[in-house]
Amino acid sequence: MVIIDTVAGMKEYVAAIKARKETIGFVPTMGYLHEGHLDLMRLAKKLADHTITSIFVNPTQFGVNEDLDKYPRDMEGDKKRSESVGVECIFAPTAKEMYPRGYATYINLEGITNTLCGISRPTHFRGVATVVVKLFNIVEPDFAIFGEKDFQQLLVIKRMVKDLNMKVQVVGHPIVRESDGLAMSSRNKYLSPEERKKALILNKSLKHARELFKDGLKDTLKLKDVISQMIASVQGCVIDYVEVIDAEDLSPIKTIKDKALIALAVKVGTTRLIDNTVLGEQLRL
Amino acid sequence: MVIIDTVAGMKEYVAAIKARKETIGFVPTMGYLHEGHLDLMRLAKKLADHTITSIFVNPTQFGVNEDLDKYPRDMEGDKKRSESVGVECIFAPTAKEMYPRGYATYINLEGITNTLCGISRPTHFRGVATVVVKLFNIVEPDFAIFGEKDFQQLLVIKRMVKDLNMKVQVVGHPIVRESDGLAMSSRNKYLSPEERKKALILNKSLKHARELFKDGLKDTLKLKDVISQMIASVQGCVIDYVEVIDAEDLSPIKTIKDKALIALAVKVGTTRLIDNTVLGEQLRL
Repeated sequence: MVIIDTVAGMKEYVAAIKARKETIGFVPTMGYLHEGHLDLMRLAKKLADHTITSIFVNPTQFGVNEDLDKYPRDMEGDKKRSESVGVECIFAPTAKEMYPRGYATYINLEGITNTLCGISRPTHFRGVATVVVKLFNIVEPDFAIFGEKDFQQLLVIKRMVKDLNMKVQVVGHPIVRESDGLAMSSRNKYLSPEERKKALILNKSLKHARELFKDGLKDTLKLKDVISQMIASVQGCVIDYVEVIDAEDLSPIKTIKDKALIALAVKVGTTRLIDNTVLGEQLRL
Repeated sequence: MVIIDTVAGMKEYVAAIKARKETIGFVPTMGYLHEGHLDLMRLAKKLADHTITSIFVNPTQFGVNEDLDKYPRDMEGDKKRSESVGVECIFAPTAKEMYPRGYATYINLEGITNTLCGISRPTHFRGVATVVVKLFNIVEPDFAIFGEKDFQQLLVIKRMVKDLNMKVQVVGHPIVRESDGLAMSSRNKYLSPEERKKALILNKSLKHARELFKDGLKDTLKLKDVISQMIASVQGCVIDYVEVIDAEDLSPIKTIKDKALIALAVKVGTTRLIDNTVLGEQLRL
């Protein structure tokens, strides 16, 4: 296991792999790795000859009043965890290495970023898109794996890679959940034991909506109402958004034909959590 | 000489070169090639094993009232001219091939684009940056050559390549001029014979400023005034901008220490022309 903290060092490491015509599977993360991240790494290992991860708490994707400074970090633990699933190299640059003095270039996506998390976090996807292009150019992965918990992020990155004619194949991985159904997230650490219980309403409301859909409810407004009421009934849970929308381009729909995304963001206490499910698709494990 | 009009076709062509570990020199153009373009291609040929050019009148870098529709085109002539200097492949995609339905991704640079041409053409560099990233990802050049006539464009692209950790080496080529001093441009074609003579004031005023600088005038405001008065004295010439600024980051300066850029944009009749020179640097030919 090697840890590299400079762009030049990483490019050299990658060039050696490329010279041997071997493939790279890449999992970009912000660290504080949980079982969800590790599953992405396991998938990367299956797909490619070499598995690389990045640990970088990217400042440009945090808003001014967001949790950049308190975002949890555990480099020693992350090393062990990622090594245990076969990661060979961690790219862990500083913010200054990634955004040196004079840095000026940002990537924006239109349309797809003007909904869901893009509303309450207006510069978030600009930061995500920018750092992901940089990481892809540095690591030159053949495959890059992203979790479907950040469903909008996955769509944004797929769209961007296609639009910019990048080489990498972007692969989504189903949401990994705790045994009680809570979607894994580094931010779950912020939850008090009581909030941790309340947070289960996210997954519960999605499950309930899946059942209603299975029983024939196709009206997106009605589905949205049911979910919203379930979540609002839990004290201390404040909805940021609940949306039932097109799963390809996130555009509004009235009636579900074959597929739809339910996406939600809820503040549980002071912690903002997201979750989602795709109706009309088998629930993947 | 091969002409390729699809991204997939171009990627295949490039992959074959890369598989042989040979290098690519690339000259992106909007076609209607003149001696200036051909000099960029000659330089590309010196630097790399293979020379590729692109001919694409990129709609995203034109403003709504600009000359996209009437921009001059001459594919047959361009083929012959580029072949004569050793270009092996022209990438000539349609706008739809480059920006298919659902296209959403744009690249912005802060600071450096908020001056000079970025003021009167506010979305111009966003279009340039976006298409250049796409072209670089498709053609994977080792070297990309840009003319210094579009000095701000060259700085924007160098900044972007550095910021996004791209692999290509961006090389500037000195302005190529007609025998009477007019900087070569596809847009010179728009000029009437009378306007063609009036347009010489751009280069003349720059030359005069170089002499004043050589004689000790370092005050940027005074230099700017002299140039502006020279140009304004020619009937039918309307100044868009005249600036004497830092040649590295285009920031304002009061007094020239060692180096400065004089950049100007002037409407001669209805045709907008640009020109520039770097004070404190030997005039390159």
